[in-house]
Amino acid sequence: MKALHSLALKTESGRVWILDQTRLPDAEVWLEGGEPAVMVGHIQRLSVRGAPLIGVAAALSLAHHAEAGASETALREAWTALRQARPTAVNLMWALDRMAGVMDAGGGRAELVGEAETIFEEDVALCDALATRGSALVRPGDAVLTHCNAGALATVGIGTAVGVIRRAFELGKLRHVYVDETRPLLQGARLTAWELGRLGIPHTLITDSMAAILMREGKVQRVLVGADRVAANGDFANKVGTYGLAVQAAHHGIPFHPVAPWSTVDLACSDGSAIPIEERQGEEVRGYRELRWAPDASPVFNPAFDVTPAALVTSLVLDRAILTGEQLQQGGLFQI
Amino acid sequence: MKALHSLALKTESGRVWILDQTRLPDAEVWLEGGEPAVMVGHIQRLSVRGAPLIGVAAALSLAHHAEAGASETALREAWTALRQARPTAVNLMWALDRMAGVMDAGGGRAELVGEAETIFEEDVALCDALATRGSALVRPGDAVLTHCNAGALATVGIGTAVGVIRRAFELGKLRHVYVDETRPLLQGARLTAWELGRLGIPHTLITDSMAAILMREGKVQRVLVGADRVAANGDFANKVGTYGLAVQAAHHGIPFHPVAPWSTVDLACSDGSAIPIEERQGEEVRGYRELRWAPDASPVFNPAFDVTPAALVTSLVLDRAILTGEQLQQGGLFQI
Repeated sequence: MKALHSLALKTESGRVWILDQTRLPDAEVWLEGGEPAVMVGHIQRLSVRGAPLIGVAAALSLAHHAEAGASETALREAWTALRQARPTAVNLMWALDRMAGVMDAGGGRAELVGEAETIFEEDVALCDALATRGSALVRPGDAVLTHCNAGALATVGIGTAVGVIRRAFELGKLRHVYVDETRPLLQGARLTAWELGRLGIPHTLITDSMAAILMREGKVQRVLVGADRVAANGDFANKVGTYGLAVQAAHHGIPFHPVAPWSTVDLACSDGSAIPIEERQGEEVRGYRELRWAPDASPVFNPAFDVTPAALVTSLVLDRAILTGEQLQQGGLFQI
Repeated sequence: MKALHSLALKTESGRVWILDQTRLPDAEVWLEGGEPAVMVGHIQRLSVRGAPLIGVAAALSLAHHAEAGASETALREAWTALRQARPTAVNLMWALDRMAGVMDAGGGRAELVGEAETIFEEDVALCDALATRGSALVRPGDAVLTHCNAGALATVGIGTAVGVIRRAFELGKLRHVYVDETRPLLQGARLTAWELGRLGIPHTLITDSMAAILMREGKVQRVLVGADRVAANGDFANKVGTYGLAVQAAHHGIPFHPVAPWSTVDLACSDGSAIPIEERQGEEVRGYRELRWAPDASPVFNPAFDVTPAALVTSLVLDRAILTGEQLQQGGLFQI
């Protein structure tokens, strides 16, 4: 396998490494993730997370398994385990289905390694295309609000929503970024704030509950978020809290844009109700890491994602096109 | 001073005690709060919090100071310090202005103690009246969503919004309560969940970002929140996040009710823009207690409250009346 490098995933001397995102920003710890069983654990614990990134990571893990001499039976078993690691982000299924296509066509280890490398390199290019298209929407002086982490840590390129933010900043158009902390796992506070700090992009961290008042005060001109799965009618799943933001943006007349590569589109899902939503353990809501602040006995609801209807989308930024909410609802995704 | 008891404030043998709410639910620690300088610290650190409660606590502290023999000059200084302890909840000013009225009328220590005791006892009765009026709005089978803590810990009675919830539960009308955790200081997760657990009221804890999806799924029939200050036109300040909830409730056609005693109404504030909003330190957003999860360098916006316009209020539950959002906007508060 060739050497590949990104902010949170790399291959070196035939080994696959992931930056443990649960430890950020306190520590930058790289963990080996080549063994599929190990990678499944990394994905489920969110040591590696972000819809595009988990797809690339799973493909590389399977390629590594092939390179290590796994039998086709072992590869098929690993493929199934990886594909079921998390249910919502369709990029995982998309990347693994490409790998299955290689196997189905009789491809061996060289072809599997080549396909995984291609998936990696394509993701870099997809992010770049998203940044070019999306940054054209940003107007000089805009302040943007984002949720969760749709950055370089969520992809192997410059990110989706944060890639757009970065490009707009480099073009001198972006005034400021407001970052939702994104409870319960705080990807905004831990990951997006860390990325923006590294890039020198001016930003302010807020709790998720403060977004609405910023909108009311005219401090936010645009909302940019990632996506974990886009249904055929433009409804999309993303980190829980995205739907509430979309409602608030609509109330204030603020443009709202999901940003996603084509690998996030699932035309087999007719609408958002068909997207499986992962529910995670209650401990994530009762506290954070070792700290517990809620009563142990309190029942918890903890969906990791929610679905935003296309009707609340101003436009969806894809690598290959930008579609308005209306175009999405009229089947626009089938025409590009 | 007579012996007075509530969930989080009590007087015993002439001493004033507060339950340290920053330690809940892990530990029930009572701290002395009779000395005004000490009580100011308790209020600023949120060891004692909740709009009605801080008013009662400040009055009792001043009465204790009088009973301990403080001069009128010392009492006036203590009065000023207590009144400035926090800026948003008008109950603090309301209670202290009543104490000043006693001093202005030449009242001595007996009269100051009597007035503070009356303020305490009135708050119990106000909560009871709120519960009676508000619970009549709840329909059989309703699930209610609440934010922050507007319970027995926020008053010396059964609470405002949570008092209504408790009464509706006792009347057999309430199906369930969804509790916003209420970042950054987690009053929902720590205090409301604890109170509801003690009362045996079925509830589910969520992050603030999950309220909208519950509304969309039809799981919430009504939103009940407290208030820290109600302006003359019905705009009101409450814990940050309340405004976003009001926007989401309006989008989903879900009734939205602030619940507050008359001591929270400030007719001298013409509208919400005149309500001073406390901004607190960034550390509260960068982490919780000893745990820090965001980069130290990340700038933070941390308003403790936001303002919800009367236009988003279905009705305001007061002890003496229920006023619709329309009545509020037409000057209804001047007519009761």
